Amino acid sequence: MGERIWTAALIVIGDEILSGRTQDKNVAQLATWLNVQGIRLAEVRIVPDVESAIVEAVNALRVRNDYLFTTGGIGPTHDDITVDAIAAALSVPVVVHPGARDVLEQHYATRGGLTEARLRMARVPEGASLVPNRMSGAPGIRWGNIFILAGVPHITAGMLDALTGTLEGGLPVLSRTIGSWVAESEIADLLRETERAHDGVSIGSYPFFREGRVGANFVVRATAQPLVDACIAALVAGLKATGRDVVDGGI
Amino acid sequence: MGERIWTAALIVIGDEILSGRTQDKNVAQLATWLNVQGIRLAEVRIVPDVESAIVEAVNALRVRNDYLFTTGGIGPTHDDITVDAIAAALSVPVVVHPGARDVLEQHYATRGGLTEARLRMARVPEGASLVPNRMSGAPGIRWGNIFILAGVPHITAGMLDALTGTLEGGLPVLSRTIGSWVAESEIADLLRETERAHDGVSIGSYPFFREGRVGANFVVRATAQPLVDACIAALVAGLKATGRDVVDGGI
Repeated sequence: MGERIWTAALIVIGDEILSGRTQDKNVAQLATWLNVQGIRLAEVRIVPDVESAIVEAVNALRVRNDYLFTTGGIGPTHDDITVDAIAAALSVPVVVHPGARDVLEQHYATRGGLTEARLRMARVPEGASLVPNRMSGAPGIRWGNIFILAGVPHITAGMLDALTGTLEGGLPVLSRTIGSWVAESEIADLLRETERAHDGVSIGSYPFFREGRVGANFVVRATAQPLVDACIAALVAGLKATGRDVVDGGI
Repeated sequence: MGERIWTAALIVIGDEILSGRTQDKNVAQLATWLNVQGIRLAEVRIVPDVESAIVEAVNALRVRNDYLFTTGGIGPTHDDITVDAIAAALSVPVVVHPGARDVLEQHYATRGGLTEARLRMARVPEGASLVPNRMSGAPGIRWGNIFILAGVPHITAGMLDALTGTLEGGLPVLSRTIGSWVAESEIADLLRETERAHDGVSIGSYPFFREGRVGANFVVRATAQPLVDACIAALVAGLKATGRDVVDGGI
């Protein structure tokens, strides 16, 4: 054990999430992608389109995590203030990135040209590099350990694809899930003791109510497959000893 | 104008959200419910099942918002540490709430009885009252302006139902949506100027790519219907003046 754990934080920027209008999908999407890179999503904040709120979150999270991601607010309209807010947090000016301007000029050549509004999407905090966007014109932005990505989930996904394998991380977190038609309160002791007996492993318990019955899925997580498998075996044995059936892969 | 704005924050507690395993639904659900109560969801944090992370978030958010909600981590298993963490944040002891114990005794009378593990769900920070749970046994908890709710969305929903109309709020935020098959970058100026011309109104622009075409929905928000309607009328007129069709209610 004792391997270095790499962490990331995410700031989701957007009134549309906080108003309940839009169901966020980027938390789950980024978390899943990070797991494969060997990086853990350690914390998330969802903030409104308000500069001071973004500045506070950026400065709180960028120092205590290896990476900071933001999604949302990098489009061409008046409510897209992410770049200005992050530049303010970093105390650097906003500049037009020549590479981003080229990308946008090409993209909009057959779509009515690069207007003033569209040129807004070439603005970056000074010192930034670009994250390719294969889906639509405007690129994402990298500044130090900060990755400024689009908010529309399929565009975010394209930007993450472009970053795959480029970030240093540790061992990916592996997991295995089993399910059982049991009230979690009936086997709380088994879960606690099994976790305690297996160093480096965490067991999550996720109850549900389905088809008129209670059940729960149990997710075992660790960075080495033998640890996961040993803990699952102990858990299955414990459940079977009390007469419960186990569904591999979860219910 | 000048009416008092009531705000709430939400802390989503759970490794299952940060691992990407579970798609959170409580942000959108709470946001929608709060709007009807005349309260705005001002910020959200998603934190792991780690006491220090919960303590930090609780103490940061409970003071600067009228209300603080938490979801998750109040079940019977070892990873359910919300009550202990919030009690630590408040510097009060954890006690068994007699009312909660009664509720659980009744609930489990025909379900195998109130075990030690199940009794964990009667534990509250000292000084708390209960939030009824119509869906399953364990109640939610109120402590001052903090509401400690379940994480399973349909149970959270039942607890919110029980709280409906009991919290002081301001005017509900009203909204109206129109959509158009237009690239938002083409009408960024129209959006900015229309918002500027209508005090107390915010316009959100939400682009999408569907059926091979780009479009956007525009959400106008204010606390008075005439404000919303006047701004929508101006926006529709502006879009039609440039030859765009408008879909009432959004696309």
